[in-house]
Amino acid sequence: MGNINLKELALALNLSTATVSRALRDSHEISTETKKKVLELAKKLNYEPNPSASNLRSQKSKTIAVIIPEVTNNFFSQAINGIEEIARQHDYHVLIYQTHENSELEIAFMRRLLSGRVDGILISVASETNDDQDFKDILNELPVVFFDRVNENIDAVKVTTDDYESTYKATTHLIECGCRKIAYLMALNNLSTGKKRFAGYLAAMKDNNVTENEALIIPDSNNDDDNYTHIKKLLLDEKPDGIITSIENLALPCYYACRDLKLNIPRDVKLISFSNLKTAPLLNPSLSTITQPAFEMGKEAASILFKILNKKYFEPNETLVLKSVIIKRESTGF
Amino acid sequence: MGNINLKELALALNLSTATVSRALRDSHEISTETKKKVLELAKKLNYEPNPSASNLRSQKSKTIAVIIPEVTNNFFSQAINGIEEIARQHDYHVLIYQTHENSELEIAFMRRLLSGRVDGILISVASETNDDQDFKDILNELPVVFFDRVNENIDAVKVTTDDYESTYKATTHLIECGCRKIAYLMALNNLSTGKKRFAGYLAAMKDNNVTENEALIIPDSNNDDDNYTHIKKLLLDEKPDGIITSIENLALPCYYACRDLKLNIPRDVKLISFSNLKTAPLLNPSLSTITQPAFEMGKEAASILFKILNKKYFEPNETLVLKSVIIKRESTGF
Repeated sequence: MGNINLKELALALNLSTATVSRALRDSHEISTETKKKVLELAKKLNYEPNPSASNLRSQKSKTIAVIIPEVTNNFFSQAINGIEEIARQHDYHVLIYQTHENSELEIAFMRRLLSGRVDGILISVASETNDDQDFKDILNELPVVFFDRVNENIDAVKVTTDDYESTYKATTHLIECGCRKIAYLMALNNLSTGKKRFAGYLAAMKDNNVTENEALIIPDSNNDDDNYTHIKKLLLDEKPDGIITSIENLALPCYYACRDLKLNIPRDVKLISFSNLKTAPLLNPSLSTITQPAFEMGKEAASILFKILNKKYFEPNETLVLKSVIIKRESTGF
Repeated sequence: MGNINLKELALALNLSTATVSRALRDSHEISTETKKKVLELAKKLNYEPNPSASNLRSQKSKTIAVIIPEVTNNFFSQAINGIEEIARQHDYHVLIYQTHENSELEIAFMRRLLSGRVDGILISVASETNDDQDFKDILNELPVVFFDRVNENIDAVKVTTDDYESTYKATTHLIECGCRKIAYLMALNNLSTGKKRFAGYLAAMKDNNVTENEALIIPDSNNDDDNYTHIKKLLLDEKPDGIITSIENLALPCYYACRDLKLNIPRDVKLISFSNLKTAPLLNPSLSTITQPAFEMGKEAASILFKILNKKYFEPNETLVLKSVIIKRESTGF
C-alpha cells in the first residue's frame, strides 16, 4: 500500500495542510462537510499520520489522565479500575485527578495537562460544570473521552448509561410495589446525566397515571448533613411511600432519617437508589439499586481513547450507551 | 540575620559541599554524626537553601504523588482526601497511583516520578513489598513520607496508627464478650503493619489466658472468592466464637459465609474488623470496627511532606503514631 503524507493529502484535496490537519483532529473550526471529504480521501489513500511527528505530540508521555469528581464514590473507583486494566494492556500509566465537583479545578487540571504530560484524558465532569468554551479549547489540543457525566454541548466521544430508562424502570418498579407518593431525590441537574434521570422518573409517573407533586422533588445539597435534614423534613411533611435517589450519596441519609423517625423500610417507605455500593446486599434492609456497569464503562471509555490515540480520525463523535441493572432487594419489599 | 551559602557552610565545617548537601538531604551515605554536625551548624548560622537552586529540583512541579494499593479501599480514598486538603492549601496538585499490591509496579511508578514530575511522594506500600534497595535509591533523590503501610527498613518519616494496641483492644473486647475461640484473619504479614496487628492479637490472647490455636489463624489470599471459601471452611471445621479481621476486605466475606451457613452474628460468632466503611453502622448486623483516622493520617502525612519540601533538613526520621478507635456495634453484641 502507498504511503501518502499530510502535504500530499492536502494537495490532493486542494486544501491547506493546516486545514487538513485540523480536520483529521476533528477540530470544531472545520466544517462537517470538509471533515467528511478529508476523512474519506485519507482512508482511500491509506494515509497514516507520520509516526515521529505524531509521537512528538500524541505518544510521548505514555500516560493518560482520569478526571473525576471523587474517588470515595464507588462508581468512580470501580470505573478507574476498568480504565487501568486497559491502560496496562497498552503499557500506559494512569493519573487520577479529583475535582470535588469544582469546575474551576477541573479546567485548571485540564489546562495543566496540555503541557504534554498526558496523551489523552478521560473525564466525568463536575456537577457544576458549565463553561463549554474551556472544554472546546482543550479538545482541540488533546483527545478527550467523556464517561458517565458528559457535557452534551461538546462534540466528543461519550460513554454513558441508559439514565432515562433506568429511572423509568425504577419508578415503574416502585409503582408496581404499590407506591403512589414517590419522592425523587434529584442530583446532577445541571448535567444531561441528571436531566435524563429526572425525565425518566417523570415519564414513568405520567405513563402510570401517578400524580406528580413538586413537594416530593428534593434537590441534592452536596452536603450530607443538609441532605439528612431535607430528607427528614420530606418524610415528616409529605409522607412519601417510595423514594428514588438519583445518586448513591443520597441513599445513606435516607436510612438514617428513616431510622431516626422510626419509619420501617420497606413497610412505611420503599427505597431504590443509584448505587455501586459493595455492601448494598448486606445493609439493613438490603438496598434495591440501579447499578451502573462502572468497571465496564471505564474499560470502554479507555478502549475508545486508545483507538483515538492510535488512529484518531477513524473514531466518530458518538455516544456509547451501556445498560444499568435494576437489582430488587428488601428496601423495595423483595 | 546573615545569609550563608552552601559553600561557606561546607568551609566552616571543613567538609566538601557534596557531603554537606547530602547531609542536608539526610542521605544514607552520610554518617549520623556528620549529619548532626551539619544540621546543628546550619541551624546556628541560619542557612537557607538557595531558593533558585533548590526550586530547580524541589519546587518546580508543584505536584506531589500519592502511591497506594487501591482507591476502592475506603481507608485509602479517605486518606487521599486528607492529603488533597493540605495540598490545596499549598497550591499543589496531587497525582494518584494505584499499585494493586504489585511491588514491581510500585517501584516503576517511583522511578518514573524521579524525572521531576513531582516534588515528593506519599506512599502506603504494596503488601508484597520487599526490595529495600529500590526504596533507598529513590529516597536519595526525592522526599518520601510513608503512611499506614510502611517499610520498617527505610529511614524516612512514617505516619502509622497504633496497630498493636488496636488488635490488643479488639481481642480483649471479644474476650470480654465471652469469646474463647477467637479466629484471626491475617493480612499484610510481610509488612510491619500486619505483623504488629497480629502481635497485638497474640499478646491479648496470652494476657487473658486464652489458648492460641494455629487452626484459627487464616491468611488473606488477596481474592474475594478464596477468602469466602477459607472463612466458610474455618467456620465449619473450627467453629470459632469470635473473629477479628485485620483488613476491611475480609469483613464482607465473613457476612456472606455466616449467612450461607445460617450462622447468626453475633449470637453464634462475633465479628470485629479493621474498617473505614461508611456503611458499617447500617449493615445487618451493624459492624464493630477498628476505625483508623484515615483522613487525619492523610493530612498529617501531607503536612510533614510539605515541611520537608520547605526546609528539608529540619525534619527528623520519626514515626508519628495516630490512634484508631474501637467502635462497638451489633456484630459483637452491642
